[in-house]
Amino acid sequence: MPDLFLIPAEEFTRVRASVPDDLQLIADMCRANTLMSVKRAGSGHLGSSLSSIDIATFLYYEELNTVELGFLHPDRDVYFSSKGHDVPAQYAILHSLGLLDTTKFINLRRQSGTPGHPDVRVAGIEANTGSLGMGVSKGKGFAWAKRFTGRGGRVVVMTGDGELQEGQNYEAFHTAVAQKLTNLIVVVDANELQSDKLCREICDLGDIRAKLASFGWYVLECDGHDFDALRKAFREAATVVDRPKFLIARTIKGRGISFMEHPQALQADGGVYRWHSGAPDDDSYTRAHQELLEKIQSRAASHSLPKVRLEAVSSPAPAPACTHESVIEAYGKSLRRLVSELPEVVVLDADLSADCRVRGIEVDLPERFIENGIAEQDMVSMAGGLALAGYLPVVNSFAAFLAARANEQIYANNTEGRKIVYACNYAGVLPAGPGHSHQSVRDISLLASLPDLAIFQPCNAVETDLGLTYLLKEFGSSAAIRLYLGMSPGAINLPPGYQVELGKGSLLKAGEQAWILAYGPVLVWEALRAATILAPEFSVGVVNVPWLNRIDLEWLESIVGQARQIFVLEDHAPFGGLATTLLLEVHRTSRMLDCRVHQFAVRGVPDCGSAQDVLKFHGLDAETIAREIRDARSGSQPFVAAEAGG
Amino acid sequence: MPDLFLIPAEEFTRVRASVPDDLQLIADMCRANTLMSVKRAGSGHLGSSLSSIDIATFLYYEELNTVELGFLHPDRDVYFSSKGHDVPAQYAILHSLGLLDTTKFINLRRQSGTPGHPDVRVAGIEANTGSLGMGVSKGKGFAWAKRFTGRGGRVVVMTGDGELQEGQNYEAFHTAVAQKLTNLIVVVDANELQSDKLCREICDLGDIRAKLASFGWYVLECDGHDFDALRKAFREAATVVDRPKFLIARTIKGRGISFMEHPQALQADGGVYRWHSGAPDDDSYTRAHQELLEKIQSRAASHSLPKVRLEAVSSPAPAPACTHESVIEAYGKSLRRLVSELPEVVVLDADLSADCRVRGIEVDLPERFIENGIAEQDMVSMAGGLALAGYLPVVNSFAAFLAARANEQIYANNTEGRKIVYACNYAGVLPAGPGHSHQSVRDISLLASLPDLAIFQPCNAVETDLGLTYLLKEFGSSAAIRLYLGMSPGAINLPPGYQVELGKGSLLKAGEQAWILAYGPVLVWEALRAATILAPEFSVGVVNVPWLNRIDLEWLESIVGQARQIFVLEDHAPFGGLATTLLLEVHRTSRMLDCRVHQFAVRGVPDCGSAQDVLKFHGLDAETIAREIRDARSGSQPFVAAEAGG
Repeated sequence: MPDLFLIPAEEFTRVRASVPDDLQLIADMCRANTLMSVKRAGSGHLGSSLSSIDIATFLYYEELNTVELGFLHPDRDVYFSSKGHDVPAQYAILHSLGLLDTTKFINLRRQSGTPGHPDVRVAGIEANTGSLGMGVSKGKGFAWAKRFTGRGGRVVVMTGDGELQEGQNYEAFHTAVAQKLTNLIVVVDANELQSDKLCREICDLGDIRAKLASFGWYVLECDGHDFDALRKAFREAATVVDRPKFLIARTIKGRGISFMEHPQALQADGGVYRWHSGAPDDDSYTRAHQELLEKIQSRAASHSLPKVRLEAVSSPAPAPACTHESVIEAYGKSLRRLVSELPEVVVLDADLSADCRVRGIEVDLPERFIENGIAEQDMVSMAGGLALAGYLPVVNSFAAFLAARANEQIYANNTEGRKIVYACNYAGVLPAGPGHSHQSVRDISLLASLPDLAIFQPCNAVETDLGLTYLLKEFGSSAAIRLYLGMSPGAINLPPGYQVELGKGSLLKAGEQAWILAYGPVLVWEALRAATILAPEFSVGVVNVPWLNRIDLEWLESIVGQARQIFVLEDHAPFGGLATTLLLEVHRTSRMLDCRVHQFAVRGVPDCGSAQDVLKFHGLDAETIAREIRDARSGSQPFVAAEAGG
Repeated sequence: MPDLFLIPAEEFTRVRASVPDDLQLIADMCRANTLMSVKRAGSGHLGSSLSSIDIATFLYYEELNTVELGFLHPDRDVYFSSKGHDVPAQYAILHSLGLLDTTKFINLRRQSGTPGHPDVRVAGIEANTGSLGMGVSKGKGFAWAKRFTGRGGRVVVMTGDGELQEGQNYEAFHTAVAQKLTNLIVVVDANELQSDKLCREICDLGDIRAKLASFGWYVLECDGHDFDALRKAFREAATVVDRPKFLIARTIKGRGISFMEHPQALQADGGVYRWHSGAPDDDSYTRAHQELLEKIQSRAASHSLPKVRLEAVSSPAPAPACTHESVIEAYGKSLRRLVSELPEVVVLDADLSADCRVRGIEVDLPERFIENGIAEQDMVSMAGGLALAGYLPVVNSFAAFLAARANEQIYANNTEGRKIVYACNYAGVLPAGPGHSHQSVRDISLLASLPDLAIFQPCNAVETDLGLTYLLKEFGSSAAIRLYLGMSPGAINLPPGYQVELGKGSLLKAGEQAWILAYGPVLVWEALRAATILAPEFSVGVVNVPWLNRIDLEWLESIVGQARQIFVLEDHAPFGGLATTLLLEVHRTSRMLDCRVHQFAVRGVPDCGSAQDVLKFHGLDAETIAREIRDARSGSQPFVAAEAGG
């Protein structure tokens, strides 16, 4: 990692005092700090942080009364970003204003710092966002409260343009007018891109101005990088007192760093925008930071100001090594093959094609690929129609968005009795950098009670291919395949000749006195490590249990024998995961009634941070697991694993 | 009940053969049969069946090729209704065409007949709908499939106008254009009313034409009761080959029965439309049927046709008597009181004000009541904003819509750590007439895994008041209150001095050998009845367990003593209900590890029919429960209660 430098908050104070009118300089200084924080975090959303930062700088530094009144004042203007991807920029601005301390700021996406998407536990953050499309509705709540209590202040909500594909926005566009929430202003960071493609390629938004006008909003439009234009737009908005206001701020994704700017960046990479998420590589980082600093210093010089001072920032501890395997890569390859083999398969995507590894299909077999934009509910119900028409849809999104947001749609499909496969990518508590809007630790509980759907989570690439093939080719009903998004932490070897069979898994390590049941690459790996740690003391076996709401106890009993102490590791909340499946089946079948189930699970809101820190926080790392197993076997006290994390 | 008469299918054939051009006569004959079927069912949606029936008659009898080609033909036109409320009218038309047999037709909302909302298991029904806003998306799936396979036929989806408040529609409006689904036609039954009020009072839809045009649809408009106008509109739509089409068919809710027609009906009842759902009283029924028949016979006479022949239809068996108590009534009263007492409480509604019994608050304290239209996601996120702004929102809807559709929004709110109360009305398998789109048997599994939310279901009016008061005044975190919509089947007496305490319930009937745990008015009543049936053989106790995801085992043990055979009755799917809570807690705390839990639950898709039939089908009636308990206690075989129902 290159040397990292921060522009300290005092420098902002100094610049602001000397040249109060130059918001551009402040914004560019915030850009440099945003870039550094994302590089240091190893991930984050640079593209839209850079497109929205001028608007947010204008709001905090000039337009809003929030900094002056403080974040607890009832008359303050309330500002937050609905998309939340741009939170690194927001943190940079809050830091520049002295409202976010330096340690927290430089530790983006770490426990000691700030979460990857907005959270009210950080000073200055007004609402939890990051799952798209909820912000305007939340803004309505604030706006209603202000009016009801007769308090001053406006409510300003930033959204993305791609985000306007989420249907909830249009509910709010209706109701904000009906409820006469005239103190609400929505600002669209209209950078024309969503994830790594043009909005108009994913799902054209058409004439946003006409749309919002037809919903009864007062629509304004301006250049979102022109402070005068922003000033003028907000002045005009202030004169409109009979309806909510909608400002389309035209921006450039990646603004401020030449090679990250749209459209050049898009052209350079063959139509794909590579700076949407993730940290830049070292060389790109160095070039980008240098370019920003030159701009900043030359602008400071033009005001005859001394050079802006930088402070060295420590490099983060390197992440532990991983395998070169990922189940999600394996999923993409396997699905690509199966689409070729099975003419009835159709692949649906909601603007996560690259992340969900279905881009290969999108490119090679576009006629079998349906891009549905950021519209999960529509995608799922469309899949229902496709299934009724005789197709076998494979529906892709992140587990948090698919299982929760489209839950009722999945249920409606399920009652139709047609087969659909839901690929729930990014399942579980890791990666933990993006925070709780993206971590999915409730999806088993959300899907397992469906009338006719089985949930399968593979622990490695081989099992992913076997499992997906089984689900598409052999399995008789609908299914969800739960996939870990990251690189697998270690190599897991399935027994020779392993075949996927409903309700059964595989013995990974023989044991005598106790057994760990686990699923997915992360927890199976931790289970194996825990067993190794404990090996000198007693023999703990490890079983991979890929079926999460179906369990064959005859099979399980054939593995665990007479051992009755069972430790279940859950990449999930305690309620409604594998332990639930196991215990209900035990009592339904009267098998293994004397077993004793100890559960390790994600208690409370999933924490944000590095993988190791977050596993440890939730008591799911091998060391904690081994310690708790040791205590449980020696002591007679109730087993309360990981309570501290909850 | 008055004598009921059906116009048999042959009469339609005869009329059609004699006067092929008179669709109005056919439609009115279908109206008479629709009215009869709803009266016989004791519930159903008359208002929108009557507003949409001319359109549907035109489609089936003239415009679509479906009847000619058959419902399995790949080139057929696919038609279905997204709102699904109008399915009685659709059944009447299918019956008139000889496609739905008479026994099925006259048994609306019964096991031997047809479900209260569309289900593909009924011949002629193309998609499961009834929860609003999914239909256009499903239509997209059919439309894509037709294009991909190169098959002919259009896809025609009926929606309501109030239904256009659901955000998912706007996702589909975007994507249908982006995906160039030019073979898709959406017809709005624009009857200006939603539930029992004007759309423009609930949440004004504004200029629908401008809205859809701004989304890139080709918009048409016509009188939905004028067959020539419909003909012309569809002819025009056929010429448009470059985009999906949207026909606003202006209709009159209640059309064809003078006193049910808007606007007269609305004026007669002080601005509230009383014919939206539910069967008419005897007198209204008789007047309405007579009016329709006079119209039909005089129209037949005008064609010199013999009188249309009627067949007598048996009256349905009377429903068993209920108490005069309902927990939902108690909820409404209790909330009304609490709103007065607690200035921070704000009540939110999504167009179910009367059903959820918050109309009293709407009328008396309009400033504390937020009508949000049919937009559950927006309502829930708005509640999040209100909570962040210091209010205590009480969010009302049916459990199926609230817990499933707004699940991710509830989660996002929950991560903010503010207190919100979600009133999940119409929870459980009863009333079973509306069918699975409305029955909610997954809401515990959907809510129980939230980081910080407790679920409470009262078994009678007293417990409702105590519980709601506790949740709003004393409880420290968010909660869901799960409420049964119907009249309670029997009087349940709580112990004197009973107070609500987290994780605890109450002993209703002492027992020695085994215990039934149950919740809610229906299952607690069945539990008490089962215990009474078994009393001569052995002593089974009954415990009311209102907390569904928190259980205090010290309390439970103090009640059940050494008895370890526990029967849990669930108004819910097997996965993720009270049995889950109990078993997880047993193993977490090492208390009652030797207990043996037998679960009665709603397996498979919830069935539609009368309360008794459906309880029995799912093995939740007292007789089945008693039999299964007897078997479980005598036999040693695994306990598989209610497997047959699944």
